[in-house]
Amino acid sequence: MRKGYFITLEGPDGAGKTTQLQRLLTFAQQYGFETVNTREPGGTPVGDAVRGILLDPQYGEMIPLTEALLYAASRAQLVHEVIGPALDAGKVVICDRFIDSSLAYQAYGGELDFDFVLRTNVAAINGYMPDQTFILDLNPKEGLARRDASLADRMEQKSLAFHQRVREGFLALATRFPERIIVIAANRPVEDVFASIWENVGPALTALR
Amino acid sequence: MRKGYFITLEGPDGAGKTTQLQRLLTFAQQYGFETVNTREPGGTPVGDAVRGILLDPQYGEMIPLTEALLYAASRAQLVHEVIGPALDAGKVVICDRFIDSSLAYQAYGGELDFDFVLRTNVAAINGYMPDQTFILDLNPKEGLARRDASLADRMEQKSLAFHQRVREGFLALATRFPERIIVIAANRPVEDVFASIWENVGPALTALR
Repeated sequence: MRKGYFITLEGPDGAGKTTQLQRLLTFAQQYGFETVNTREPGGTPVGDAVRGILLDPQYGEMIPLTEALLYAASRAQLVHEVIGPALDAGKVVICDRFIDSSLAYQAYGGELDFDFVLRTNVAAINGYMPDQTFILDLNPKEGLARRDASLADRMEQKSLAFHQRVREGFLALATRFPERIIVIAANRPVEDVFASIWENVGPALTALR
Repeated sequence: MRKGYFITLEGPDGAGKTTQLQRLLTFAQQYGFETVNTREPGGTPVGDAVRGILLDPQYGEMIPLTEALLYAASRAQLVHEVIGPALDAGKVVICDRFIDSSLAYQAYGGELDFDFVLRTNVAAINGYMPDQTFILDLNPKEGLARRDASLADRMEQKSLAFHQRVREGFLALATRFPERIIVIAANRPVEDVFASIWENVGPALTALR
């Protein structure tokens, strides 16, 4: 049934995921693919409502366990309504954050049990694991400096130690799932970052045509 | 550390859970206990926001998997902020719906994998399993008839077949966890229902004093 191609972009805020996602979309479209792009949390009416809770600084008392379950809920609905149908229809789906963000932020950053977060999310995605994941790697200090701190949302307000654990988590995931995840150094010019992404995914995409 | 007593009331809307909860509270207070009562979903700022999503009829496309994860998220936060601290302080906690509602509504009613829902919720409640659970059992037709259909929320709008599966689920849970769950016939006068509840929990409560 499934015949599309599923790419996810991961890494901290400020690493350039949105920019790279737009370029990937443009390239995929130039190769004749129908594309769908989406972001997490959100991407559905239910998911957007959950996103509103997750990112609202008024909920500072939210524990990592609650966070992990809310992200998984938003993800389950997104896979059901958007990602699954698009992949079944042969489209290229590019998602800004997906399962690896939960593993990096809630398991490594929030210090929840890794296997619990993994099992919960494997259930949430119902078999739609990404074909290729790029982690845009950046020193947390650089990532935070690229953002306007006064506009920081609830996740961004966490401590530097938290963001260090998140980065280590992303790198550990790449070691654990080497057939799926590639780490891309994000502290380089946009064009160079995109060249690294395209050289790793272009052949697989063009082979599909 | 934990030294309070945790009672949950389960069963369909319309079975009289709220009325029985109030009586239990009054009796427990008369015996000198400090009490805490709460309801699910909700009971915390985060949980109330999640409740708003779960019960809003505009989200009719929400799948059972998303539902189960949202209920578990609300529950995790409620245990962390309210139930756990109250039990640790020796209080009697009475909750209107808890883990068994997720098992009955999402696993049996929504036909999700039982072990997934159980495992997810066992993680969410962080060890605070109820000491005693009462299922107020009612034929779904009677329960629905007691409610004003024009005010039905998203969960209540589901089909009669769904509510039949939920009832069978509650009864199956009582068989599976006999040391914790007692089924109480709810199609009787309020006083008779309460007498059945009190004869099963009164001795345990008074023994704590």
